[in-house]
Amino acid sequence: MATIIGAQIPNLPWQDKPEAFPYPVWRFDGNPIITRDNLFFANSIFNSAVVPFGGKFAGVFRVDTRTRDQILVAGFSDDGVRWTLDGKKLFEGYDPRLCEIDGAYYLTWVKLTPHGTVIGVAGTKDFVSWTEYEDACYPVARNGVLFPRRINGEYVLLIRPCDRGHTPYGDIFLLHSKDLTYWGKPRFVMAPQKNWEMTKVGAGPTPIETDRYWLMLYHGVLTSCNGFTYSMGAALLDKEEPWKVLHRADSFLLAPHELYECVGDVPNVVFPCAALADSRSGRIAVYYGAADTAVALAFTTVDDVIDYVLAHDCAGNVD
Amino acid sequence: MATIIGAQIPNLPWQDKPEAFPYPVWRFDGNPIITRDNLFFANSIFNSAVVPFGGKFAGVFRVDTRTRDQILVAGFSDDGVRWTLDGKKLFEGYDPRLCEIDGAYYLTWVKLTPHGTVIGVAGTKDFVSWTEYEDACYPVARNGVLFPRRINGEYVLLIRPCDRGHTPYGDIFLLHSKDLTYWGKPRFVMAPQKNWEMTKVGAGPTPIETDRYWLMLYHGVLTSCNGFTYSMGAALLDKEEPWKVLHRADSFLLAPHELYECVGDVPNVVFPCAALADSRSGRIAVYYGAADTAVALAFTTVDDVIDYVLAHDCAGNVD
Amino acid sequence: MATIIGAQIPNLPWQDKPEAFPYPVWRFDGNPIITRDNLFFANSIFNSAVVPFGGKFAGVFRVDTRTRDQILVAGFSDDGVRWTLDGKKLFEGYDPRLCEIDGAYYLTWVKLTPHGTVIGVAGTKDFVSWTEYEDACYPVARNGVLFPRRINGEYVLLIRPCDRGHTPYGDIFLLHSKDLTYWGKPRFVMAPQKNWEMTKVGAGPTPIETDRYWLMLYHGVLTSCNGFTYSMGAALLDKEEPWKVLHRADSFLLAPHELYECVGDVPNVVFPCAALADSRSGRIAVYYGAADTAVALAFTTVDDVIDYVLAHDCAGNVD
Amino acid sequence: MATIIGAQIPNLPWQDKPEAFPYPVWRFDGNPIITRDNLFFANSIFNSAVVPFGGKFAGVFRVDTRTRDQILVAGFSDDGVRWTLDGKKLFEGYDPRLCEIDGAYYLTWVKLTPHGTVIGVAGTKDFVSWTEYEDACYPVARNGVLFPRRINGEYVLLIRPCDRGHTPYGDIFLLHSKDLTYWGKPRFVMAPQKNWEMTKVGAGPTPIETDRYWLMLYHGVLTSCNGFTYSMGAALLDKEEPWKVLHRADSFLLAPHELYECVGDVPNVVFPCAALADSRSGRIAVYYGAADTAVALAFTTVDDVIDYVLAHDCAGNVD
Amino acid sequence: MATIIGAQIPNLPWQDKPEAFPYPVWRFDGNPIITRDNLFFANSIFNSAVVPFGGKFAGVFRVDTRTRDQILVAGFSDDGVRWTLDGKKLFEGYDPRLCEIDGAYYLTWVKLTPHGTVIGVAGTKDFVSWTEYEDACYPVARNGVLFPRRINGEYVLLIRPCDRGHTPYGDIFLLHSKDLTYWGKPRFVMAPQKNWEMTKVGAGPTPIETDRYWLMLYHGVLTSCNGFTYSMGAALLDKEEPWKVLHRADSFLLAPHELYECVGDVPNVVFPCAALADSRSGRIAVYYGAADTAVALAFTTVDDVIDYVLAHDCAGNVD
Amino acid sequence: MATIIGAQIPNLPWQDKPEAFPYPVWRFDGNPIITRDNLFFANSIFNSAVVPFGGKFAGVFRVDTRTRDQILVAGFSDDGVRWTLDGKKLFEGYDPRLCEIDGAYYLTWVKLTPHGTVIGVAGTKDFVSWTEYEDACYPVARNGVLFPRRINGEYVLLIRPCDRGHTPYGDIFLLHSKDLTYWGKPRFVMAPQKNWEMTKVGAGPTPIETDRYWLMLYHGVLTSCNGFTYSMGAALLDKEEPWKVLHRADSFLLAPHELYECVGDVPNVVFPCAALADSRSGRIAVYYGAADTAVALAFTTVDDVIDYVLAHDCAGNVD
Repeated sequence: MATIIGAQIPNLPWQDKPEAFPYPVWRFDGNPIITRDNLFFANSIFNSAVVPFGGKFAGVFRVDTRTRDQILVAGFSDDGVRWTLDGKKLFEGYDPRLCEIDGAYYLTWVKLTPHGTVIGVAGTKDFVSWTEYEDACYPVARNGVLFPRRINGEYVLLIRPCDRGHTPYGDIFLLHSKDLTYWGKPRFVMAPQKNWEMTKVGAGPTPIETDRYWLMLYHGVLTSCNGFTYSMGAALLDKEEPWKVLHRADSFLLAPHELYECVGDVPNVVFPCAALADSRSGRIAVYYGAADTAVALAFTTVDDVIDYVLAHDCAGNVD
Repeated sequence: MATIIGAQIPNLPWQDKPEAFPYPVWRFDGNPIITRDNLFFANSIFNSAVVPFGGKFAGVFRVDTRTRDQILVAGFSDDGVRWTLDGKKLFEGYDPRLCEIDGAYYLTWVKLTPHGTVIGVAGTKDFVSWTEYEDACYPVARNGVLFPRRINGEYVLLIRPCDRGHTPYGDIFLLHSKDLTYWGKPRFVMAPQKNWEMTKVGAGPTPIETDRYWLMLYHGVLTSCNGFTYSMGAALLDKEEPWKVLHRADSFLLAPHELYECVGDVPNVVFPCAALADSRSGRIAVYYGAADTAVALAFTTVDDVIDYVLAHDCAGNVD
Repeated sequence: MATIIGAQIPNLPWQDKPEAFPYPVWRFDGNPIITRDNLFFANSIFNSAVVPFGGKFAGVFRVDTRTRDQILVAGFSDDGVRWTLDGKKLFEGYDPRLCEIDGAYYLTWVKLTPHGTVIGVAGTKDFVSWTEYEDACYPVARNGVLFPRRINGEYVLLIRPCDRGHTPYGDIFLLHSKDLTYWGKPRFVMAPQKNWEMTKVGAGPTPIETDRYWLMLYHGVLTSCNGFTYSMGAALLDKEEPWKVLHRADSFLLAPHELYECVGDVPNVVFPCAALADSRSGRIAVYYGAADTAVALAFTTVDDVIDYVLAHDCAGNVD
Repeated sequence: MATIIGAQIPNLPWQDKPEAFPYPVWRFDGNPIITRDNLFFANSIFNSAVVPFGGKFAGVFRVDTRTRDQILVAGFSDDGVRWTLDGKKLFEGYDPRLCEIDGAYYLTWVKLTPHGTVIGVAGTKDFVSWTEYEDACYPVARNGVLFPRRINGEYVLLIRPCDRGHTPYGDIFLLHSKDLTYWGKPRFVMAPQKNWEMTKVGAGPTPIETDRYWLMLYHGVLTSCNGFTYSMGAALLDKEEPWKVLHRADSFLLAPHELYECVGDVPNVVFPCAALADSRSGRIAVYYGAADTAVALAFTTVDDVIDYVLAHDCAGNVD
Repeated sequence: MATIIGAQIPNLPWQDKPEAFPYPVWRFDGNPIITRDNLFFANSIFNSAVVPFGGKFAGVFRVDTRTRDQILVAGFSDDGVRWTLDGKKLFEGYDPRLCEIDGAYYLTWVKLTPHGTVIGVAGTKDFVSWTEYEDACYPVARNGVLFPRRINGEYVLLIRPCDRGHTPYGDIFLLHSKDLTYWGKPRFVMAPQKNWEMTKVGAGPTPIETDRYWLMLYHGVLTSCNGFTYSMGAALLDKEEPWKVLHRADSFLLAPHELYECVGDVPNVVFPCAALADSRSGRIAVYYGAADTAVALAFTTVDDVIDYVLAHDCAGNVD
Repeated sequence: MATIIGAQIPNLPWQDKPEAFPYPVWRFDGNPIITRDNLFFANSIFNSAVVPFGGKFAGVFRVDTRTRDQILVAGFSDDGVRWTLDGKKLFEGYDPRLCEIDGAYYLTWVKLTPHGTVIGVAGTKDFVSWTEYEDACYPVARNGVLFPRRINGEYVLLIRPCDRGHTPYGDIFLLHSKDLTYWGKPRFVMAPQKNWEMTKVGAGPTPIETDRYWLMLYHGVLTSCNGFTYSMGAALLDKEEPWKVLHRADSFLLAPHELYECVGDVPNVVFPCAALADSRSGRIAVYYGAADTAVALAFTTVDDVIDYVLAHDCAGNVD
């Protein structure tokens, strides 16, 4: 039995696992929860981040506008399912992640610059006023994800260096910082290993702390003759040296299967960007972008997912 | 209030705008109006051109046969919605446009040659017998669209030079001719500007003359990691010097959203090739190819579309 | 009237041709017959081979696991429609073909090696114990299909040499062997000829012997701006010198049209790998992979298909 | 015996053919005649055009500056070998051709525009003041070469449509004009045919009129694993319908062989841009760019070259 | 001390190793021995094969004609250095290898077919009349090299499968045959291992039999930003199971260094195609193509080369 | 008159500018000073770094071994021209830069990791024992160059992020560090601007401090149809905010011209990696790699180069 370390979220969105369902992650039956038509000026809304906020939920959402500009907007929800998005642009860029550290909420996202994308870093207390910090890197990088607390006194940031365009490769690395301004001691975390993720991998939601591991959900990409397929995988990282992958599921945990995941602006995409984890019940709600078009929700528990990873371990490491 | 200059088309196909619909272009609820199964020998029917003809409607339709040869056939309709297509090949090639000038109907299309595609030009009075003119250009070009009258005494042709294959770039240019045989004074019209059209742009239906502008609907292409997405945009051109883009909508007016636009031989394609405009009511019916598979219909009015362009202007020009 | 030479299969799966149906091949209305969810560990099940076996049916099925490893498993069916798949991996690789020669069942498939794919060859009497032979070729090749009897005393194998990756070209060749170990006298069979197959062609089911020809169903690939489209075609080969294409349909016989063919892990794929032919009735049941996701079934008769090929002949040969 | 139709050029640069030299074209032993160091601001000087001018010679030279901008400058010479180049930029662009028609000198060149290269057209009487005409085409084209007189009352322009960048394909076409402003009646002239020119071909010097043919020297490009190799070929065109290739040498007439042709900014380039032809003696002096670095000179006679073409004819046409 | 097994060649071309020369292979100081100007119709002569023949030497030479067609011609020499080439085309294709087995001379070469290159096989007794056998493979393959005797009763052929065009990858494989017609039991021999050969490897001269190993000289290719660099390496193969690489030099033995290797139609190419080995002296003369332009000669001894391989072994195998 | 700030180097290698030489940088007439044959195990020696050391000179040299592994070795010289290289590998990697800060010598180089190249950082006092620090970045980056002193208390590192392989793009960025371990505040420095550097730019020698500017020599790359051409340019950076380019020469200062620069393992490369600057005389000696094969030397003075930059300024900034 694994334990989530962190806050209790009694109003975590939830549906019980369907009877006899054989896999560790199951979809919300009301998917997608946010469609492309949610905002007047949106072409699509997907790959978005949420956190518990004042007993309710707040989030930062990726909106591709009808000019196909990529912007972030804030959103709020009482139940984590029905969201009210704010029409005001917070930042330019995409694929936000959110985490709370020491009472402040930190946003990392793929920030657009004239020279390529970087990892932008900003903080807020109220999701209304934001402070932007120095970029965490030079171009080109994507999938910047902070750990939800300092480890050995240092902030730790997952990052996926890449190139301009639709990068045909990609590994996950990790950086350390004492001050969110200077970053160093880069460490390799993981590269594609199994076929379903053979093109590239990138960190997903803020890692979830458990008693024995950091649970990192991530996306992996497979290239077929008709393009990329994005799926969700899971790995368990060392608590103190989180660049060490102790266990890793050899198969995806969620892959494009439903029509809203297979059809849309980019067919065949399941892209997790956020997860809510309730330390009391062990329940986890995963928010993921579907087909680069909509936001969907899936569920698991800390035991479901860790048991699955341990049972399908391809990391070749002992704990 | 803008005014369409041209014929009245009392039997223009039409549905009123859905209540509270926030966008300037809305789809016909009977879409697609022509499916891939309309002709026995067809694999798909799409990207086609129509004109008013003797109080009814005539058209030239792109048919990809079951050999996947690309041919054009004529078609006729009483109401512009239900079409009877003729099984006889008019020409080899694709993406026809039609316009009436001085009582004759001119067809321009992407004509196949052993050395690449060119813009073919042909004329008819009855959609039965056709006269073919000299090609308007050498290879390789696509999206040749005539203005519906001479401007300053000269025929004007929009054209999109390209390369062999699935051209990864493309701008719209314009040529002048006194005789439909010799073409000159090439002028740059427009290049991709906003994200939704960043890969290439190409002229769509025959431009619609209004009291103040030429209304040019066009398609723009975005490249995702899973291929091209085609959407429809709009620009307003100078009446006398139509290569001058006076206003241009920063966002698309119609983009792949419905299943018949997102799924088919080429997913995620909205490709407008013709528009009927009724000068009395200001109503406009746009015919567009959906997913390179079927023909669909959408509606707008001259005020809806011009107001939208002016309100979302990215041309940076003053009128 | 053509005659199938071979066994009678009274329990061949069958549905009559829909009334007024204009094409020679029609789909089973219960498609897909095997979905991606048929096996617990499967991501997808498609491109599979079946043969009559002891009055019932046996098959070898391509399963892409949830690690996206490609494996083959056996399966059995009483009626050819409802299949029970075995969860045990027979071989690594994909796209199996099966044929019976002299009372033994031979499997050829795309076998994975560290240096590229080859054509693996194995034999069985019972679909339980298998003998693997020497590979029929060095890397890289795919689509290895045996003829169902020796011709002039020699085994004959169709093969599609290719390169690593999603080969952008491909012709069908043929090899001879006296012993299934040494292969020689390579002969060119056919290359892409018409647009629908312009990128590459590859042999499909085990060729069906008729009184006058070998009927070879095959797949052809067209490249659009959004990837590959796979369709099924047909050719009639010389009985004695089967590398001679006597007749060949200029158009596909089956192309992606239904949602389960257009949407899935690889959109727009119809990939035939097996056909059951009943010599008494002339009925043929074709098994094909749909969208690299599921297995589907279509029907024709030897007369339907041969008449169609002769009526749409593009081979330029006389019989 | 063939006869050149045109002016006498008694001071044509000349060296006799080396004894027992087996080929129809031989190099000047003082090559290169203009080096990259000829102008202070030049990185390289090559691919240039010359004409007889007032009993001496004038030319327009391609200079790649030390910023690697591409400009044209005028130059003058008493003997056609020693040239004084003018440091003043005439036009931006490259690969000029010159011809005299009706007492005026016409320059065509690859003119740079923000949207790709076009064929610029300009005229002069004195190589000092120039009149620029409308561009002869929209982007993208290169190798625009005028015939040295009107044919059937029309100017005729050879052109090589291409794409942006280092075009991997290319055929020669031809346009007609009555006024140097409107161009029409495009005709295909020739495509790559033999291995040495398999990638692309482009017109070279102004065609030389002879009693029976237009002699067109041109360049052909072969792609090796280490890049492009440019060589010079020859074809004989119909006098009245110059898009008809009556004869064509199957082999190159000059290919990279000397160090100054094999080493430089672009190794392995022989690129002819101009030829002087003396109607009295039948002597021809060819100016060509060497390795995109310097200007070199080679010699032939009208009989040498026509005899060679006729003896190595691959055009498959009768005269 | 290693011993060459095979004929004595007392007139083997030879120069002693330069004093203090630190490497195992040294160049002939009269290089290149055959230039591109050796034959009237040649553009270049390179990558050629020679054998002892009647106390003198015979060879088959790759000639790229001035049409850049690739043909083979015979040649004869008294001393192995000065060659008289025959102007008559033997076969179309390139990169010949020669070996003597049981008194007959066998030629393998890269034979051109409309569908890609294959390994052609032909035999002669006199280098005048030739018998062509069945092709040893289907397209696409290159670098077919026979062992100079049957091993365990079977002919053995090295082969490098590849794709159309300038293949960006390539491993060496090996086939067996009892009759030079049917080939089987394919075995992987070796892949690129060290940087100097990282793009691809291909067999070179006919392997040289020594008392303990087959000495295989081969070429390896490195890709720089300016194209391919071809160098010569060496491996020692098992006598009975020659697909087993017992030892392999980690570095090249000869790489482009001299001007005639670095400059020419394809810069930076050293491509060995033949070696003469004198069993009495242990001397070896290697013929290699230089810059795809000329034929050059280098020397070594069986001890020099085997000692070097053993001292720089990267095979990771024990003998 | 500009003044170099830094040490005096009385024994700086030097030759006076040739009479009437029109450019600001001139070559040493004994070039190349270090050839590929300088070390027994070397394939090539180039792109190397030197510093004054104890009244003499020390350096770190890039050696590509005969396995084509890339290593760094130390070297020493009395006069900066004749060098004795040490055969011992210091580090794996390439393109070293050296600078002295506070009495220690710091090496930055392109360090090889299994996941791509990074900027390695190491320090020494004696060029014998080295301390390696944390990598300055995650993969992939090249051209890491330290400023020779702290600026506003922080170390400053120029860096060129790139991708795996022969990156087809590249801009120069800059990072700050207080401790050579954590790096932050990334700043864009410059991108390609003029044609000669249009593909990418990368920092060259350690910047030279003058009274008014940091003088940054750098390389720029142009892509021709036959590959990359590397040349040397110059920019003047702000003393306090060195990411601000105050002036920049629009043209290269040195480009491939001599045979040793145009012919070699990578033709057409001039790649500066080090410069010695004598504060007394204003003389500067630049060490550059030639054709990825050898090390060459060129000279300038601080006035020559700054005057040239100011006279050819394309930075568009005021000082």
